[in-house]
Amino acid sequence: MSTQDRLIESTQALLWERGYVGTSPKAIQQRSGVGQGSMYHHFTGKPDLAAAALRRSAEQMRGVAEADLAAPGTAYDRIAAYLHRDRDVLRGCRIGRMAQDPDVVADPQLRAPVEETFDWLRGRIAELVAQGQADGEFAPGLDPADTAAAVVAVVQGGYVLARAADSAEPFDRAVRGALGLLAAHRTA
Amino acid sequence: MSTQDRLIESTQALLWERGYVGTSPKAIQQRSGVGQGSMYHHFTGKPDLAAAALRRSAEQMRGVAEADLAAPGTAYDRIAAYLHRDRDVLRGCRIGRMAQDPDVVADPQLRAPVEETFDWLRGRIAELVAQGQADGEFAPGLDPADTAAAVVAVVQGGYVLARAADSAEPFDRAVRGALGLLAAHRTA
Repeated sequence: MSTQDRLIESTQALLWERGYVGTSPKAIQQRSGVGQGSMYHHFTGKPDLAAAALRRSAEQMRGVAEADLAAPGTAYDRIAAYLHRDRDVLRGCRIGRMAQDPDVVADPQLRAPVEETFDWLRGRIAELVAQGQADGEFAPGLDPADTAAAVVAVVQGGYVLARAADSAEPFDRAVRGALGLLAAHRTA
Repeated sequence: MSTQDRLIESTQALLWERGYVGTSPKAIQQRSGVGQGSMYHHFTGKPDLAAAALRRSAEQMRGVAEADLAAPGTAYDRIAAYLHRDRDVLRGCRIGRMAQDPDVVADPQLRAPVEETFDWLRGRIAELVAQGQADGEFAPGLDPADTAAAVVAVVQGGYVLARAADSAEPFDRAVRGALGLLAAHRTA
């Protein structure tokens, strides 16, 4: 692996575990085994490196979500696959977690990959809901964009509840609850 | 206000803005105007003070939620009032935010008020859903506990999406989406 990749992967892991405020340049150097001089050769500083790490995490998260959302099956099946995907729930979402970090939200370069990921995800699920309506699978009453925002929020909020409880149980309940709510909108 | 209350209120505000990892004893002293000696006279340290601040935030959040959930009206109306409550969405939830903090989640004394608040909230909303079913307002198909977890997750995830977007729009959409999903389960 290149030095640059080692730095990016170590920063991805630290941001997920400790957040931006809790991640020091020294911790990145220790975890990656890359020295200070080499780190500042590749990146101008912690914000620059964190932005690269967030862009990579965002790309990976999109790839994983798209695998479920583009799978064969009905719109409901694909949304259910996205919701039921096997997750390390107690670690939380490495993208959503960043939205709690005041220094990430205040920095346009750091916030951009977080915002773009959720915009893409909401748009993708809204498309599925609209397609399900066009195919006669879902009743026409649902607003696709609002429904998509609720679906994405259930996952993000499910992580919050799971971490609060130190248990995946509330996440699993929230996902089942959302699918139960959605199921009534399917045409017979 | 007593010195103890000044310390607790300053810690509540700092935890909300900066999180636990990002809040130093020095910042608490500066914000409260209380000296180091006096702070350590009232509290054994940052964890002790943060636990007191979290317990107070939890109590306040329960009071505010209960005002909507115990209001007159149908179960749907009361859940809608809870979801539509006027919130400072971009500040996020002062309780939910704590679940992202690794040091809070790892410390049973700090995690307890966070877990208890969400347990209470899920239980309270599950009661409302079950009561709505008993009254014939909701169709019997919904699982009360799962539905309640989804409702609470929508709010917590809505905060995440809003902070990511630096706009209340995704929060408002998620809430409308959740109510649209719930509406189909009302009996005519």
